[in-house]
Amino acid sequence: MIIIAERINGTRKAIKAALLAKDEALIKKEARDQAEAGANWLDVNAAAEPDREVELMEWLTRTVQAEVKTPLCFDSANPRAIEAGLKLHRNGQPMVNSITLERGRHEAVLPLVKQYGAAVVGLAMDDGGIGKSAADRLRVVEKMVGAVSREGIPLSDLYVDPLVLTVSSDQKSGLIALEVVRGIKAGWPELKTTAGLSNISFGLPNRRLLNRTFLAMLLGAGLDSALVDPLDAQLMAAITSATALLNQDPYCKNYLKAHRSGKLTG
Amino acid sequence: MIIIAERINGTRKAIKAALLAKDEALIKKEARDQAEAGANWLDVNAAAEPDREVELMEWLTRTVQAEVKTPLCFDSANPRAIEAGLKLHRNGQPMVNSITLERGRHEAVLPLVKQYGAAVVGLAMDDGGIGKSAADRLRVVEKMVGAVSREGIPLSDLYVDPLVLTVSSDQKSGLIALEVVRGIKAGWPELKTTAGLSNISFGLPNRRLLNRTFLAMLLGAGLDSALVDPLDAQLMAAITSATALLNQDPYCKNYLKAHRSGKLTG
Repeated sequence: MIIIAERINGTRKAIKAALLAKDEALIKKEARDQAEAGANWLDVNAAAEPDREVELMEWLTRTVQAEVKTPLCFDSANPRAIEAGLKLHRNGQPMVNSITLERGRHEAVLPLVKQYGAAVVGLAMDDGGIGKSAADRLRVVEKMVGAVSREGIPLSDLYVDPLVLTVSSDQKSGLIALEVVRGIKAGWPELKTTAGLSNISFGLPNRRLLNRTFLAMLLGAGLDSALVDPLDAQLMAAITSATALLNQDPYCKNYLKAHRSGKLTG
Repeated sequence: MIIIAERINGTRKAIKAALLAKDEALIKKEARDQAEAGANWLDVNAAAEPDREVELMEWLTRTVQAEVKTPLCFDSANPRAIEAGLKLHRNGQPMVNSITLERGRHEAVLPLVKQYGAAVVGLAMDDGGIGKSAADRLRVVEKMVGAVSREGIPLSDLYVDPLVLTVSSDQKSGLIALEVVRGIKAGWPELKTTAGLSNISFGLPNRRLLNRTFLAMLLGAGLDSALVDPLDAQLMAAITSATALLNQDPYCKNYLKAHRSGKLTG
């Protein structure tokens, strides 16, 4: 499983403050902690102040890269901020988070993805909004596959997010997301899937329990990746056990290692 | 989700001793604790001493029924022990655990299932053993559906167990069980599915973490039921959250109730 670490997000209070104060120590600690916890990509979102997003993304990219070698995932709705990050990126394959099929939400970004050989997160929605049914969303995925292919981007670099909505406002949200993941894996085996998890539990207590239980279900359905907080020890224990259970951890080596270092208890 | 509670099993040391000593208090406490924890069926296995299984099953049935109103699941390879239990059963629909398609493992049992209107657990194996692939096991399911139908038993009373083997000896075991559950749900929507969980984690540390993570995956794939220990608080928290996530808990009522009574923490 591929972990995109979500903590360096300028819409979070502590990160916003650190961005505006250019607090390198805090950002570097977040980067180091998440890298050590097993992140494959570090999401970086500099949207603390819209007018300064390009400059803040440059500072964030430099600051994180001065501390860790983990590739970065540039998280922005602003193509100029994404490009600013991609230009400075130097460790491995960068990722772009995200495109949709809405007008203006992919046209400027896909050429950058192609130019920089990036991976890209694609949310399964278009100008009609988020489809009510799995079939609606899979039709958007089909169009997105077309757009990405026409740009010359390998399908294995597209990480489709089925869009996980809130189960407390629509109780079918979980079932629909699972069906979209299964539909993608059946229809386009070369495509990747990813998911932002935390919406699922909005408005309910014990959110982390719901999030990690739902992540296990999504992984069982074939999910490749998720945007998560790798410092959540119980979530990471669920991921470590899920990868062992799904034949993604030869000889259960990582599972046994995590056990020996006390990471699976609790 | 339908919970078959596994603790009253004469092959467990404490239960064997209680059976042989006719220790009503211990058996009644196990029955009460499991019923209160949410069991839909209480599995009863009297195989403490093969020669006395019929007599012990009668005693066990009477003892448990004197304490709780939860229906019983008669767990035996001996049709006479199963019949002895069924004759005495008086609360709701009984269940029989289990048949297979091996010679001698269903012929005498299916008429009893029919006669007593019982549900029945069917293990997906025949005289060829346990199929290596999901397709092999689904072929056995197809034959089992035929045998059950010919007996006049409704398919909705057949609980097929995909057979969950040990991931530490064959790392594909988890994927195969998931595929069998999905295959059953796609091919025979009226059929039920159930699973014994604990084999999956045999030989590995932190077994309960693996068991509950795998159960979440199975439930996400459509599993209806499982044979579990309802006194395992973390497992039950995973089940409670999974049912809320899968639209099986209207208004998340049970989830919120479990939260208020402190059952979701830890």
